Amino acid sequence: MVQPHRQALLIVDVFNDFRFEGGTGLAEQFRPAIPQLALLREHFRGRGVPVVYVNDNFDRWHEDMHGVVAYTREAGPDVSREAADALTPGREDVRLLKSRHSAFYRTQLPALLEHLRVGELVLAGMAGDACVFTTALDAHVHGYKVQVVRDAIASQTQARNRRVLEHLRETLGMATPGVEELVSRIPREGRC
Amino acid sequence: MVQPHRQALLIVDVFNDFRFEGGTGLAEQFRPAIPQLALLREHFRGRGVPVVYVNDNFDRWHEDMHGVVAYTREAGPDVSREAADALTPGREDVRLLKSRHSAFYRTQLPALLEHLRVGELVLAGMAGDACVFTTALDAHVHGYKVQVVRDAIASQTQARNRRVLEHLRETLGMATPGVEELVSRIPREGRC
Amino acid sequence: MVQPHRQALLIVDVFNDFRFEGGTGLAEQFRPAIPQLALLREHFRGRGVPVVYVNDNFDRWHEDMHGVVAYTREAGPDVSREAADALTPGREDVRLLKSRHSAFYRTQLPALLEHLRVGELVLAGMAGDACVFTTALDAHVHGYKVQVVRDAIASQTQARNRRVLEHLRETLGMATPGVEELVSRIPREGRC
Amino acid sequence: MVQPHRQALLIVDVFNDFRFEGGTGLAEQFRPAIPQLALLREHFRGRGVPVVYVNDNFDRWHEDMHGVVAYTREAGPDVSREAADALTPGREDVRLLKSRHSAFYRTQLPALLEHLRVGELVLAGMAGDACVFTTALDAHVHGYKVQVVRDAIASQTQARNRRVLEHLRETLGMATPGVEELVSRIPREGRC
Repeated sequence: MVQPHRQALLIVDVFNDFRFEGGTGLAEQFRPAIPQLALLREHFRGRGVPVVYVNDNFDRWHEDMHGVVAYTREAGPDVSREAADALTPGREDVRLLKSRHSAFYRTQLPALLEHLRVGELVLAGMAGDACVFTTALDAHVHGYKVQVVRDAIASQTQARNRRVLEHLRETLGMATPGVEELVSRIPREGRC
Repeated sequence: MVQPHRQALLIVDVFNDFRFEGGTGLAEQFRPAIPQLALLREHFRGRGVPVVYVNDNFDRWHEDMHGVVAYTREAGPDVSREAADALTPGREDVRLLKSRHSAFYRTQLPALLEHLRVGELVLAGMAGDACVFTTALDAHVHGYKVQVVRDAIASQTQARNRRVLEHLRETLGMATPGVEELVSRIPREGRC
Repeated sequence: MVQPHRQALLIVDVFNDFRFEGGTGLAEQFRPAIPQLALLREHFRGRGVPVVYVNDNFDRWHEDMHGVVAYTREAGPDVSREAADALTPGREDVRLLKSRHSAFYRTQLPALLEHLRVGELVLAGMAGDACVFTTALDAHVHGYKVQVVRDAIASQTQARNRRVLEHLRETLGMATPGVEELVSRIPREGRC
Repeated sequence: MVQPHRQALLIVDVFNDFRFEGGTGLAEQFRPAIPQLALLREHFRGRGVPVVYVNDNFDRWHEDMHGVVAYTREAGPDVSREAADALTPGREDVRLLKSRHSAFYRTQLPALLEHLRVGELVLAGMAGDACVFTTALDAHVHGYKVQVVRDAIASQTQARNRRVLEHLRETLGMATPGVEELVSRIPREGRC
C-alpha cells in the first residue's frame, strides 16, 4: 500500500491578469510574495510533498493551465510575467483550474486530496482575503487541517491581509507561519 | 407559473447548547440578538418572503429540527430556552439541518433555493464569525447576492463580530444593514 | 474510539403518493415488498446496523419526514397507508429527505455515512429502476460497496425490475441477495 | 448579452488504455463507433454547439488532457491509437478530466454547463453501460434534458449496450437517436 502523503502545498491564483478594480494595488502587494512562493515550492518539492496549483480560468474554458499562464503573461502587467517566469508549474506539480473563489467549489480538488490521502493543507497565493481565504475556510469545513503562509499571500491592502490572518488565528485557531519558519523546520520523524 | 420569490431570510444556528470553549461568551453576546431575530422573522413572514432555518444537528442524526430545539432547550443555559421560546420555527418556515459550518455544505439548501427561485439571501444568527460568516462566503461563491444583518448576529466577542462585518463590506462589498433599517424599508415595487 | 459500523440499510422512497403516470402499476408491484422491507428493517435493527430512510419530499419543503408520511397516507391509495402502517420510521432510525432521484444528490447522506463510518450499503425500496437504481449507481461512484435486495424493491413492471438487476450484477458485479438469504445469514465475526 | 447555446455534445472516455478485465471486448466494440464520433463532432462543431470532452485521468493527476491522450496512445492497443488519431480534441473543444464514472462527479462540468447556459446534453463515447450511462443518469438528476446517441457508444457486449438503451428509453423516456438521424436533421429555427 502506498504510504499516505500527509501534507500538500496549495498554490492559489498566482497567475492573474489583474484586470479588475483594485488590480493594480493587488499586483503591487503580490510582487514581494513571488520569491517567497518559489522558495516554498522548492522546499515542499524537496520533501516529496505534492504541490498543487489551483488557478482561476478567467472563463477561458478551452485552455488548460499552460494556456491560462500564457494568457496572463500576455494580458497582465509586468508582475504577471514575473510570476509566470518564477512559478510556472513543472511536470511534477498537479494543475487544476477553477472558476470561482474556493478551490474546493466544483473542481477536482476533493477527489485529488482523497487520492493523495492528504490530511493537511499549506496554503499560499492570492488574494489573501479572497480566494486564499475562502479556500482556507472551505478546507476547514471539509475537515482538513490548514495552515496559511502569512508572507506568501497578498491582498489589495495590508490591512485586509492582516484582518484575515487575525480571523484565521483567533476564530479558527489556524497556524499562519512564515516561509522562513517552514523552510527551516526540521522534518518530523516519519512525516513524509 | 409561480411568481419567483426573490429573497429568503436564512436563520443560522440559533438553537445551540453552548457546550464548547467560549460558549458562555457567545451566549451572552447572543441574548440581545434574540428579539432582533424575532422582529426580522416577523417582518419577512409578513412580506411573504420564505424564512429558512438552518441549524447544526449536534451530531443528533436521529432528530428532526424540533428534536434539536428540544435538545438545546434541555442541555443549554437560560439563553437556549429564551431562543427556543422566541424563535421556534413555525409550520410555514422551512427547517434544514446541517453538520458543518456552512449551510450550503452537504445539505438540501442549494436544492431548496433553486426550487424557490431565490437570488438573494438575508443572513442572521450565530456565530457571526463562524457559521454565519462561512455561509455568507459560500453563498457568495455560489453566486447569490447576500446581506448580513449586523445587529441580528453574534460572535464570542464584539471585536470578532466587527472584523467579519468589515471583511464582508470591504472585501466583498456586501450590505450589512441593521434590523431597524430592513424593517422600515418601503418594499420596492414588484419585489415580492 | 467508537467502533465503526460497516453497513447501513438504506430504505428509499417507501412513502409515496403514487400520483404520477404509471403510479397504479408501481403501487401494485410494491405491495408484496412491504412485509419484506419490514423483515429487513427488523433484522438490521437487531444487529445494531443503522437504518436510514431517505425519501422524496414531494416538494413539501415545510415538512419533516413524519409530515411526508402523513401526506402520503392521506393523498395516496391503500398501499400508501399500508406502507405507513408497516414502515413508519422509529426514533432509532435516521430520516433524511431528498428532492431528486439519487439519495446522494444535495442531501445530508454523504455527511451521515462519513459520520457513521459506513463502507457498505444495503439498498431497498422503490422504484427499483429509478430512485433505488440511481442511488445504487451513485453509491458506487462515491466508492461504497453496494447490495440491492432483489425482493425488497419494486418497479412499474417486472421487466424493468429484472433489467436493472441484470445491469447491477453484470456491469457492476453487485450482489443482489434476497431477504431470506440476508436474514438467515450467520453474522461474520466482528462485523458489527 | 451572449446568446445561450442550448445544447452541448459530451464525448465521454474515448481515450482509454483498455487495461482492465473485459478491455479487449470493449476495444473491439468501440472500433466502429470511432468514425461515428468523428462525424458527430464535425456536425456539432459546424452548428456552433460546444463540444466537451470529459475523460478519465487514469489516476495520472499530473497530466492535462493531451497528456492523457498521449498516455493511452502509448499504453493501449491499436484502437487507442485510432481513437487518438481521429478524435484528439481541437483548440475549440473544452477538455475536462474526471476520476470516476460520472462526468458530473467532482469535476468542473456543472460549472461549465452553467457558464455556457446549456440545457440539453447529447452524449456519446464509452462505456455505454458504465461512464456514459452513469453520466446520462446524473445529467437527468441534475435537471438536464439528455439524448444518448445509440450508435456512437459502445459497451463490452451488445447485450449490455441494448439493455441500457432500453432502460433510458423505457424508464426515463430519453431519446436515443442514431448519428445519421442527428446529422441530417434540419436545424430548428433559432435553436443555436
